[in-house]
Amino acid sequence: MKYWICVAAVFLLFRNLSAQTTHEDKKATIAHFFNESLTNAPIPAHLHDLTKQIGHRISGSPQAEAAVHWIKMQLEALRPDSVYLQAVNIPVWKRGPKEKAFIQTAGHSLQQMQVLALGGSVATKGTLRAEVVEVKSWAELSALPADKVKGKFVFYNRAMDPTKIDPFEAYLEAVDQRSIGAIEAAKKGAVGALVRSLTLAKDDYPHTGAMQYANGISKIPAAALGTRSADLLSQKLKDRPALRFSLEMHCSTLPEIVSNNVIAEITGAEFPDEFITIGAHIDSWDVGEGASDDATGIVQTIEALRLFKTLASKPKRSIRFIFYMNEESGAHGGSKYASAARENEEKHLASIESDAGGFQPVGFRIDGDPQAVDQITAYSSLLSQYGMGRILPKHRGVDIVAMKDLSRVLLSLDCESHRLFDIHHSELDTLDKLNYREVTLGAVAMTVMAFLISEYGL
Amino acid sequence: MKYWICVAAVFLLFRNLSAQTTHEDKKATIAHFFNESLTNAPIPAHLHDLTKQIGHRISGSPQAEAAVHWIKMQLEALRPDSVYLQAVNIPVWKRGPKEKAFIQTAGHSLQQMQVLALGGSVATKGTLRAEVVEVKSWAELSALPADKVKGKFVFYNRAMDPTKIDPFEAYLEAVDQRSIGAIEAAKKGAVGALVRSLTLAKDDYPHTGAMQYANGISKIPAAALGTRSADLLSQKLKDRPALRFSLEMHCSTLPEIVSNNVIAEITGAEFPDEFITIGAHIDSWDVGEGASDDATGIVQTIEALRLFKTLASKPKRSIRFIFYMNEESGAHGGSKYASAARENEEKHLASIESDAGGFQPVGFRIDGDPQAVDQITAYSSLLSQYGMGRILPKHRGVDIVAMKDLSRVLLSLDCESHRLFDIHHSELDTLDKLNYREVTLGAVAMTVMAFLISEYGL
Repeated sequence: MKYWICVAAVFLLFRNLSAQTTHEDKKATIAHFFNESLTNAPIPAHLHDLTKQIGHRISGSPQAEAAVHWIKMQLEALRPDSVYLQAVNIPVWKRGPKEKAFIQTAGHSLQQMQVLALGGSVATKGTLRAEVVEVKSWAELSALPADKVKGKFVFYNRAMDPTKIDPFEAYLEAVDQRSIGAIEAAKKGAVGALVRSLTLAKDDYPHTGAMQYANGISKIPAAALGTRSADLLSQKLKDRPALRFSLEMHCSTLPEIVSNNVIAEITGAEFPDEFITIGAHIDSWDVGEGASDDATGIVQTIEALRLFKTLASKPKRSIRFIFYMNEESGAHGGSKYASAARENEEKHLASIESDAGGFQPVGFRIDGDPQAVDQITAYSSLLSQYGMGRILPKHRGVDIVAMKDLSRVLLSLDCESHRLFDIHHSELDTLDKLNYREVTLGAVAMTVMAFLISEYGL
Repeated sequence: MKYWICVAAVFLLFRNLSAQTTHEDKKATIAHFFNESLTNAPIPAHLHDLTKQIGHRISGSPQAEAAVHWIKMQLEALRPDSVYLQAVNIPVWKRGPKEKAFIQTAGHSLQQMQVLALGGSVATKGTLRAEVVEVKSWAELSALPADKVKGKFVFYNRAMDPTKIDPFEAYLEAVDQRSIGAIEAAKKGAVGALVRSLTLAKDDYPHTGAMQYANGISKIPAAALGTRSADLLSQKLKDRPALRFSLEMHCSTLPEIVSNNVIAEITGAEFPDEFITIGAHIDSWDVGEGASDDATGIVQTIEALRLFKTLASKPKRSIRFIFYMNEESGAHGGSKYASAARENEEKHLASIESDAGGFQPVGFRIDGDPQAVDQITAYSSLLSQYGMGRILPKHRGVDIVAMKDLSRVLLSLDCESHRLFDIHHSELDTLDKLNYREVTLGAVAMTVMAFLISEYGL
C-alpha cells in the first residue's frame, strides 16, 4: 500500500511539474516574441515601403502587383519552407479623372460637394443632374411613392451612431447604405445614389468602399459624400426640396485579370498536414496610402513569420502566412485560397486575419465550434497581461469568411477602432496615422495565438 | 409567526427592489453621461481654441494667462455655483533664441545635433565647447574617475526600454536622467549635461521637460538630444572619443510672478462640505501646442462640469473642477490648492486628475486608504462594459500629489500611452495627434467616477 501511495505521489508530482514547465515554457515563448518584436521588428521600414514607395494599391493596379512582388521578396528573405503565388482572377475597376459634384444654392451660386465614386460604380455619362430625395432608413425609402424617387438621386443620410462605444459596430450598422443603396434606389427608378460617408468625423473627406449591383436591376452611379457635404446638402434640401445635384464620374470596369495571393509556409514538425493561417490583404482602395487598411496587416503577417523563424525549433503544426488579393472588391483572393484548401482536402485548425486598422490590439473576435472557441479563450488568458486577452464573438475578417466550413475557428485581430473610421477608405489613410508599437503588438498577438494552437492543438 | 415571516419577506423584497433600482439608476446615469457626451461634447471646438488659437502656454507666458481667461469664460458659461481664481506664485523660465548644437566629425565637417534646453536650465554664456563622456547608468557615472568627467559634457544615453508594454513605465524608469542628470554631472565637475530624449520614436525631435538643480552644486546647462542625434553622437564617440560638442543656449530664469489656478464648484445638495475634485493642468511646455499634455485634460474637465450640469438634480457632495497652473515646472498650482484645502480644513474624498495624454482611456490609477480603494474598484466595474474598468496602483497625477494626506483617494485617468511618448514635450504635441472620441470617453470616465463617489460615498 505504502509503495503504491509513493508511486502515485511521484507520478502526480511529475505530472504537476511537467504541467508547470509547459505553462512556464508557454509564458517564456510569449515573452520572447514580445521582447524580440518590440526591440527588432522591421515594421517602420516595411510600412514605409508599402505606403510611401508603393502607395495605394487597388486590385488590378500596377501598385497592387508591385506589392505582390515586394511581399514575396520579404518572405523569401526570411527563408520559410516555401513561398509561392496562388493565381486569382480579379475584377478591375478604375476611378478615372477626379469626380465633380455640386449643387446650385439660392442666388444660383454653385456649392461644391466632396464626393468619391463608390468602388464598382458605373460612370455618369457626362454630367448627371437630378433632384435629390433624402432618406435615413430603409423604411423611409420603402414608404416613398415611386414618383417621389423616379428620376432622382436617393441620398442616404443615416449617420453612424456616435453613442456606440465601438465605432466598428456603428460602421457595421450603417454600411448597408453603401453596399446595397444603389440597388434599392434603382428598384424605385432613381438615377443615382449618394451615400453619407461612413465616418464619425465632421470633415469633408469622402470615404469610398465596395458597393453592389444586382442582376436585372438597372446599374446607377453611386458616390460617397463627405459628412460636411452631406450635412450641407441635407440643410439646403430643407429650404429648396427641388434643388438639383450635379455629378460627373468617369469610373469604369475593365475585363478581369489574373493576379495573385502570396503564401509562405513553415511546415509543421509533428503534424505537417494540420494548418494554421495568419493573413491580411494586399489590395487597398485607390485613395490615401492604404496604410491602416491593410498595410498594417501585411507587415504584421510578415513579422509573424519572422518571429516563428526566431524559435529554436519548428512549430508542431504547419503555419501559413497568406497575403490575399482583392479583399476590398469581392474577396476573390480569400475565396480562391478556400477553394484550393477544399480541393486539397486540407485540415485547417484556425484562420487568423488582421484587417481591423492596426491600432491598439485588445484581443480577438472569433467564430467556430464551441470546443475550439473555449480552447482559444483559455489561450487568450496568456495574452491578458499584455492587454490583449479579450475574446468577443463575431470575427471581422472578410478574407477568411470562405473558410467558415473548412477551418475549426476563424479569428480576427481586434483593435481599438476610434481612429479607424476617421481615415478608413479615404485620402486620410496614410502612414502618419499609425503607431509602430501598436502595429507591432498586433503582430505578436497573432503570432502568440498561432503558436499556442500549433503547440497545444485545439 | 406567520405575520413576522410576512413582514420580513416584504422588508427583504423592498430592500432588494431598492438595491436594484439604485443599481439600475447608476447604470442609467452612466449611460446618460456617455450618450450625451459622445453626441454633444464641444470637445473638438475647445481643443481647437486651446491649441490653435492659444497654442503652447508655458508658465508665465501670455498664452498661459490667455488660457486662464479662456477657461474661466468656458466655466462661467456653464453656470456652476461658483467660478474663481486662486493666486499662485510661479517661477518663470524662458527659452530665448533657438538652441544651437553641433559636433565636429572626421574631416572637420560639422554635424548638427537636434537639441532643446531642458526646462529650468541655465544658459551657456556663448558657445560651450567640450568633450563628451557617455554613460548609460548611474553606476557607470559613479565608477568614472573625476578626471574623466571634469570639464566635459556628461551624455546620458540610457534609452527607454522598448520591451515594457506600457511606455509610461519605461518613461518613469528613464526620467531620472533628465531630472537629476545635471546635478550628478556637476558633482563630478562636468560643464554640461546632454540627455537622450525620453521617447521610443526613432526620429530627431528633441523632447524637453523639467530638470532640477541642487543647493551648493554648480548649475550647469542641460539639454535634450533627439534620439537620432543621440545615436549619432554615441556612434561618433566610438570612433573619436575626444570629439567636442558645441552647445549654445540662451535660456534664462526671470523673477517669480503671480498667476492663477481656475476653479469651478457645484455645491453638494446633501454634503456640501465633502469635496471631490476633477482636474488637469493649464500650462504646457513651450514647443508644439500642448495638445495631449494637457489640453486634453483641460477640455475633459470642462466637459465633466457640462455633464454634471445636465443632471436633473444636484450631486450629493460638492464637486470642484480645478485647472492647475504650473504643473510642468514645480506644480506650484497643485501645492497651492492643497495648502488652501488644509488651511480651510476641507474634507476631500477624492482628487482626480487627467494628465496621461488623453488617448484611449482604460481606467484609473489609484492611491489611498485600502477601504476607499476597494470602494473605487467596485465602482469601476460599472465602467468595464465601456472598456474603462481597469484599476491599477500608483496614480500618476503630479498636481494631486500634494493632496496625499488630505484626500482619501488620489486617482489619475489611465490611458493607452503608445502614442504619448512619440510626441510628449516636443514640437509634435499638436492637435492632429488627438482623437476626439478618445478624449471624450476620458471625460466621461472621470465624470462617472466623481458621480459615483458623490452619490454613494466612500
